[in-house]
Amino acid sequence: MGLDETFGSTALLTDHYELTMLASALADGSAARDCVFEVFARRLPDGRRYGVVAGTNRVLDAIADFRFTDAEIDQLAATAVVDDATLKWLAGYRFSGDIDGYAEGELYFPGSPVLTIRGSFAETVVLETLVLSILNYDSAVASAAARMSAAAHGRPIIEMGGRRTHEYAAVAAARAAYLAGFATTSNLEAGRRYGIPTRGTVAHAFMLLHDTEEDAFRAQVAKMGADTTLLVDTYDITKGIETAVAVAGTELGAIRIDSGDVGVLARKAREQLDALGARDTRIMVSGDLDEHAIAALRAEPVDAYGVGTSVVTGSGAPTAGMVYKLVEVAGRPVAKRSENKASRGGQKAALRRHKPTGTALEEVVYPAAQPPQLGEHDRLLHIPLVRGGQPVDGLPTLDDGRALLRRGLVSLPWEGLKLSHGEPAIPTIFR
Amino acid sequence: MGLDETFGSTALLTDHYELTMLASALADGSAARDCVFEVFARRLPDGRRYGVVAGTNRVLDAIADFRFTDAEIDQLAATAVVDDATLKWLAGYRFSGDIDGYAEGELYFPGSPVLTIRGSFAETVVLETLVLSILNYDSAVASAAARMSAAAHGRPIIEMGGRRTHEYAAVAAARAAYLAGFATTSNLEAGRRYGIPTRGTVAHAFMLLHDTEEDAFRAQVAKMGADTTLLVDTYDITKGIETAVAVAGTELGAIRIDSGDVGVLARKAREQLDALGARDTRIMVSGDLDEHAIAALRAEPVDAYGVGTSVVTGSGAPTAGMVYKLVEVAGRPVAKRSENKASRGGQKAALRRHKPTGTALEEVVYPAAQPPQLGEHDRLLHIPLVRGGQPVDGLPTLDDGRALLRRGLVSLPWEGLKLSHGEPAIPTIFR
Repeated sequence: MGLDETFGSTALLTDHYELTMLASALADGSAARDCVFEVFARRLPDGRRYGVVAGTNRVLDAIADFRFTDAEIDQLAATAVVDDATLKWLAGYRFSGDIDGYAEGELYFPGSPVLTIRGSFAETVVLETLVLSILNYDSAVASAAARMSAAAHGRPIIEMGGRRTHEYAAVAAARAAYLAGFATTSNLEAGRRYGIPTRGTVAHAFMLLHDTEEDAFRAQVAKMGADTTLLVDTYDITKGIETAVAVAGTELGAIRIDSGDVGVLARKAREQLDALGARDTRIMVSGDLDEHAIAALRAEPVDAYGVGTSVVTGSGAPTAGMVYKLVEVAGRPVAKRSENKASRGGQKAALRRHKPTGTALEEVVYPAAQPPQLGEHDRLLHIPLVRGGQPVDGLPTLDDGRALLRRGLVSLPWEGLKLSHGEPAIPTIFR
Repeated sequence: MGLDETFGSTALLTDHYELTMLASALADGSAARDCVFEVFARRLPDGRRYGVVAGTNRVLDAIADFRFTDAEIDQLAATAVVDDATLKWLAGYRFSGDIDGYAEGELYFPGSPVLTIRGSFAETVVLETLVLSILNYDSAVASAAARMSAAAHGRPIIEMGGRRTHEYAAVAAARAAYLAGFATTSNLEAGRRYGIPTRGTVAHAFMLLHDTEEDAFRAQVAKMGADTTLLVDTYDITKGIETAVAVAGTELGAIRIDSGDVGVLARKAREQLDALGARDTRIMVSGDLDEHAIAALRAEPVDAYGVGTSVVTGSGAPTAGMVYKLVEVAGRPVAKRSENKASRGGQKAALRRHKPTGTALEEVVYPAAQPPQLGEHDRLLHIPLVRGGQPVDGLPTLDDGRALLRRGLVSLPWEGLKLSHGEPAIPTIFR
């Protein structure tokens, strides 16, 4: 199976230094100390007003698959990464600690304690890279996708960017975009793995394969019915639409326009379709769309958007920049002393305060052992995710995350949904 | 195995529309037509002067694993993506065509025909997303990494950005960075899968785990020897260096500085280390470095760089933007007619012309059937990769790619290596 023979375990999706730290800490006994690591973003990407947590459930799956089987142990031994005592410890590795965190689809702001992992130093230090990889990528995509969903104002968006990012990142991107309100994806593996509805019709290659545009439309309609989406911009769009309706009839499901000034073209296409009697034929547009382009099309007769590159690359912010920091050792707060990075020791939790109207006011981050009075319009943000190494029952689903995010976006002050650069929508208050 | 049970086949790393096109083309018989698809980038990322091809060998592995087993067929049947006739065809899928392309590590420019895939429409159309995902991500990383390697001017760079991108993208990124001249990676899976040397020592968490900095240094040196890298910026750097040399002696291998103004700090550290007699102790710096930061440190006493976020996200260009276009059907050139996208029909090949000194002059892209006269200083850029569905013997290795890229960078006109925004280093001439 070439490429994929090693995918059974996630244990080597890990930075070398995690195991060398482990080796030294096992040798001097400090590996057994109770530790608390926290995941948070020091800041949002430049000018963003909120972030969206995504990947949490993928993290839990990946931790369950974090096992040093013979294959991993042999590799580490052959490359002398660590000594035999450490290898022996790794061979028995099972995460046995506790995890709390923000649910998928929850908004986050600078300093929000998105994930809290508790356990011995040994069992928690080795999860750093795996946890961060997943949360940083998935949250980057979901944060961008939420802006697009908001800009689309209820019109459906199909995610079709898999070809613009790593082949497995593509699957996670489809999931994160769906979490953030996209309607469907083009990615079949995301359909299999996460039950996300998939969609697709044809590319320009299908048009060019045939001798004429009419031949191509006939072949597609014969196979897929009139309620399909015909791609009308391979040659001349006006002629394409004429042919499309001639072939499929006025019951034609949709046309797709993938190039040119799609706003102008959509308006002309609507007029032409209406004149031809195809009043219910929808118009889908695609081609280098991002949240700004979507917003600019709000007044145009567009029924659906296809979004690719911009969503899978986080629309200018391809990583969420979250970090995994040791904040407590044996019950004692710890923090690096640094000139330019805010670090706060001690295990924390968070709540969000709201006005009686439901509008969010502030993110309050406080020492976990000293919770403030919970007001009527406050909401605790941590949920239990893992206890004693086992995922808790009834974890929120992907659909729960979609609903949570919808509520979260509605709760933001109105300027929090602006696409322009600005400050975080609500301040983070550290208690 | 939760997350990874489905990784055996790459067949669903595919856009839905590839299979619906296939279904329609099988129904009307056009699926059997001989086709040529080409992969190319219409342009380089904004201001870039060259691109670096990466991922080709990963593409060949992924095509070998592109099989519709019962698991994939069942999924497609359950979600009604295509009809039974198409499923039956997919169950027997084996790519049986030919592939030529640029070797990994080859430079590319706008319009360079990076990969050419020939076969029936049916067998070639379904590979679009998989091929593009791999080439677009890997080439984006390699293109950024090559700029960093050039800026580092022979000083080693360790890739340590896995935590800032999808967990499997991280593995591909380590490979692409190594192809582009990085010395090592922190990613253990990249070590296993591609034999890339891995490195790492400790994070700040290890320092904070211990009661004092001295305790942490002692634990590390006891386990890993004096020739290790001590992280000296957890508290006070000057004090940290003093303690480091006191603990490890003047044979201390290296110190790492991960925060602050690393140029100034490196100079002060060098003076301090020399004064303490640790003249051979190296200085490694890390912390949000990109090619510009590396270039700015050229005059400073830095011995090695650690690079993370910027390399795995393509340093501002997270995708190479390559496309997969049908250019020939049954021996006849085809091309979409489009106002704003240059499309050229017909199968193409390419050569690079050089001055007698070896400096590259231009990229010549020509109809494959009409090769121009090959001059003494010209080099053909396509190599055979697959014949009759089978990878050819003796494909270039990752180390071959490293050597090819080194030669390629040396061959560029001097302004082609500038980091500032500019035009492609050489023009592409279409014959």
